[in-house]
Amino acid sequence: MLTLFHHPMFATCRFVRLAFGEFNEELSLIEEKPWTRRKEFLALNAAGTLPVLLAEGDVPIIGAHVIAEYLDETRGVLKRDRRLLAEDPLDRAEIRRLCDWYLVKTESEVTRHLVRERVLKPLMPEALGGGSPDSSAIRAARANVRQHMKYTNWLAGTRHWLAGPRITYADLAAAATLSILDYLGEIDWSGHTAAREWYTRMKSRPSFRPLLADRVRGLSPVAHYADLDF
Amino acid sequence: MLTLFHHPMFATCRFVRLAFGEFNEELSLIEEKPWTRRKEFLALNAAGTLPVLLAEGDVPIIGAHVIAEYLDETRGVLKRDRRLLAEDPLDRAEIRRLCDWYLVKTESEVTRHLVRERVLKPLMPEALGGGSPDSSAIRAARANVRQHMKYTNWLAGTRHWLAGPRITYADLAAAATLSILDYLGEIDWSGHTAAREWYTRMKSRPSFRPLLADRVRGLSPVAHYADLDF
Repeated sequence: MLTLFHHPMFATCRFVRLAFGEFNEELSLIEEKPWTRRKEFLALNAAGTLPVLLAEGDVPIIGAHVIAEYLDETRGVLKRDRRLLAEDPLDRAEIRRLCDWYLVKTESEVTRHLVRERVLKPLMPEALGGGSPDSSAIRAARANVRQHMKYTNWLAGTRHWLAGPRITYADLAAAATLSILDYLGEIDWSGHTAAREWYTRMKSRPSFRPLLADRVRGLSPVAHYADLDF
Repeated sequence: MLTLFHHPMFATCRFVRLAFGEFNEELSLIEEKPWTRRKEFLALNAAGTLPVLLAEGDVPIIGAHVIAEYLDETRGVLKRDRRLLAEDPLDRAEIRRLCDWYLVKTESEVTRHLVRERVLKPLMPEALGGGSPDSSAIRAARANVRQHMKYTNWLAGTRHWLAGPRITYADLAAAATLSILDYLGEIDWSGHTAAREWYTRMKSRPSFRPLLADRVRGLSPVAHYADLDF
């Protein structure tokens, strides 16, 4: 079994867990608090970022999209219609673009800020950046959530899955991101019927179950978080 | 000939130009100022980011690493020992990790700030974010340059090319980034002998020539910028 250094409230880490889950491959999970800059962890990844996968031979593979490519090259290519990348280079580019959209753009405009202010700061010692949440950062992130929901709704309304006719990494990246925002009660699902229908389908997949069981100390999810028929 | 929407002072765009240059494939370049949020450009890339490649059939391919994968899949795999990615999945992961290091980490800790404050702000209208440079942002970025030079020097001192025995995307990502910092005179090469030797090799490659000819209005490069024997 491979090992994943992760944090339950990082979208990039949830994305990797979903991807292995789709391939029915269990991971041994180690929760890492990257802000503590643990020496043993920095020895694996000098950048100090998550996720880090210990692949075959305990070689560290660093970063969500790098792990996704590795997973495709070592497993995905053999999965035929369960592969999470397409065969055609242009279709692959579209899947990768959407992964970047959620794991880089939504992350930097929305997810990172809400997670830092609402989840991490209350848990972090002051010397490492903990303390009271910054309400202006929360407000700015909340204003951006709407644009990302609108875009997701548009994608889900024009395609069966977000990147086309089959489920791909794009769906996992989007669902990983939205699952964190949903945990925090930051998503207004009304008026986003197509996105909601797509997310319900994602939530019902066996790969999603472990995410719905995630809990953060001192912060319960919204009532409908783990509800498959929300 | 394919078209690249780019900005001469974005490392991600220089990286793509170097990659096509290594394959001797000319690009038609269109300089884009993403902060103006030009409607025709947003229609190609809703995220409004650079670089954007118009691939075969004018299909937009968005983002440096997505373009690099597309280039590898459609050209690189046929290049044998001139391929810019490795064959082995673990070696590929290391190359991608280093691309992320320079195009994401160095970018967010150093390059983006120095380019914004020193290059873009003086050119941008005030309504779009222009104005006087923020000296504290410049100071913070400059403090970080040292760490990134130290790391590059370590890589260059332990491997012939940054990711191993052959030139790869990792070298292009690093050189694209350092070429911008060097243009701005932000690199102290003394004490970084291995990095300097590696960068001299990079600078001498035909793919690098167009970058050394780049000029930004109102801001000349340091004297040694285009000097192959600096």
